[in-house]
Amino acid sequence: MPSFSDRLAEAVRAKGPLCVGIDPRWESLPAAFRKPREEMKYMWRVSVALAEFGVRVLELVRPFCGVVKPQSAFFELLGSMGLAAQHTVLNRAREMGFVTVLDAKRGDIASTATAYADAAFGGCTIDGETFPVWDADALTINPYLGRDAVEPFLTAAKKADRGVFVLVRTSNPGAGLFQDLVCDGKPLYRHVAAEVANWNASTIGACGLGDVGAVVGATHPRELVELRDAMPNVWLLVPGYGAQGGTAADVKAAYRADGLGAIVNSSRGVTFPFHPDDPDWEAKIVAAAQKAQAELRS
Amino acid sequence: MPSFSDRLAEAVRAKGPLCVGIDPRWESLPAAFRKPREEMKYMWRVSVALAEFGVRVLELVRPFCGVVKPQSAFFELLGSMGLAAQHTVLNRAREMGFVTVLDAKRGDIASTATAYADAAFGGCTIDGETFPVWDADALTINPYLGRDAVEPFLTAAKKADRGVFVLVRTSNPGAGLFQDLVCDGKPLYRHVAAEVANWNASTIGACGLGDVGAVVGATHPRELVELRDAMPNVWLLVPGYGAQGGTAADVKAAYRADGLGAIVNSSRGVTFPFHPDDPDWEAKIVAAAQKAQAELRS
Repeated sequence: MPSFSDRLAEAVRAKGPLCVGIDPRWESLPAAFRKPREEMKYMWRVSVALAEFGVRVLELVRPFCGVVKPQSAFFELLGSMGLAAQHTVLNRAREMGFVTVLDAKRGDIASTATAYADAAFGGCTIDGETFPVWDADALTINPYLGRDAVEPFLTAAKKADRGVFVLVRTSNPGAGLFQDLVCDGKPLYRHVAAEVANWNASTIGACGLGDVGAVVGATHPRELVELRDAMPNVWLLVPGYGAQGGTAADVKAAYRADGLGAIVNSSRGVTFPFHPDDPDWEAKIVAAAQKAQAELRS
Repeated sequence: MPSFSDRLAEAVRAKGPLCVGIDPRWESLPAAFRKPREEMKYMWRVSVALAEFGVRVLELVRPFCGVVKPQSAFFELLGSMGLAAQHTVLNRAREMGFVTVLDAKRGDIASTATAYADAAFGGCTIDGETFPVWDADALTINPYLGRDAVEPFLTAAKKADRGVFVLVRTSNPGAGLFQDLVCDGKPLYRHVAAEVANWNASTIGACGLGDVGAVVGATHPRELVELRDAMPNVWLLVPGYGAQGGTAADVKAAYRADGLGAIVNSSRGVTFPFHPDDPDWEAKIVAAAQKAQAELRS
């Protein structure tokens, strides 16, 4: 199997940098998914609807993007039943050839971090046999706990040819509270970026980029320029485009001269561009994905 | 319902500061839980065993501690089936009167953080009806994403009379990589501590402590002293006692003069003090819990 970074490069070369975020919310689902099976118990009914809507979105956006990012929180909100829907969406996305990024922002230490990493990548080993769990191509992780909160993820990713995206500079308005604190002459996020570049260095694939990526929000264009320079061989996962206010012009800075180097996520903007009662919701998703692909490629 | 901080104070006054971590690992389970039901498919068999072992541990440690902390990673390692076991363990712990801390170290922004927080506390609302999900008394959260990564958890906790424990200074050897960086004259973890004290200030209960706690490792006794002083009304969740090397003497600094102010977690030390083939595993758990309770109270 090609390395994670090379699989990502292939997807971006084929379909551009658009990454569609699958963040299904019951109250936003098209009426078609909310009405049937009213006899089912609520939690199951909603979980089944999340899976079915998520899979339908995959089918609709497939011509326009090669990468999808399910947001674990919206599945976890339905408990173990919702997480069964997360299994379904990740499985179908993989079968359809998408590169999958599980957005779960995990972070813990030692054997606990290894448990999260095995769940995401290599699977659960029971009496010598290994069973896939989320089986994602990449996972978002949180660096606050330090070296031993990241290394188990790097080890598990390496072993299974997968990747991680480490939170560096997030897209939210309050991100700077800690990320912008200046330590030894540079902001905290630059210290994290330096470690990411370092962890990434031994994982460079044929495409010239590595398997240890960084999350950098589209809502901070100045930092995006700075971080692209600081991490020249690091894939950037750029949230904040679309509904959160980042524009296609803002994210240009994330691409390298070769056109690779970033995937740009849109969740609500592509997957919920309709009112729940709108019968034309499928056409609106297709139009939104097509528009985002064109904007991000131009 | 009394506030989270007052429920925690009541548990600590009754049984001392011991918090038992429920981190079930298949390869460490007593043979009694590994042998039966070999006809069941692996993942289900293991998930059922994790739930049954977790519940048995609750029964065994009940005389010696009032707080338990299931570690979500070890349930997630079995996927949605393992998370069904997490439902079971949290439900039984609540029914048995434990204060429950779900150790999941969540952190995300805006509506995504709200989804995690609702899963942990208030539940999932579907067409106006609300269903409990994890329904834990408290959740561990990661502060790296900043203000909007914490506030949705505080809002959801307040609404449901629950609490959070924010990662401040973790117990792992590599914790200092970012947490110890000096920004504006003090280490990052002190900046996080100052925000925690601030978020906590409006939540002080009758016990004199609030609902916004902090995670501070027992393996850093100097920082424990410093952080107890910096956050006088903040509950500390202290991991790292026992298997990770922190001693009962090390954690003394976490208690306030009134004997409240900290819960001290032991996971492996109390729940796996035996070889899987040891038929006396129950007696060993009871002895380990009794010893930890006595050490931490004296």
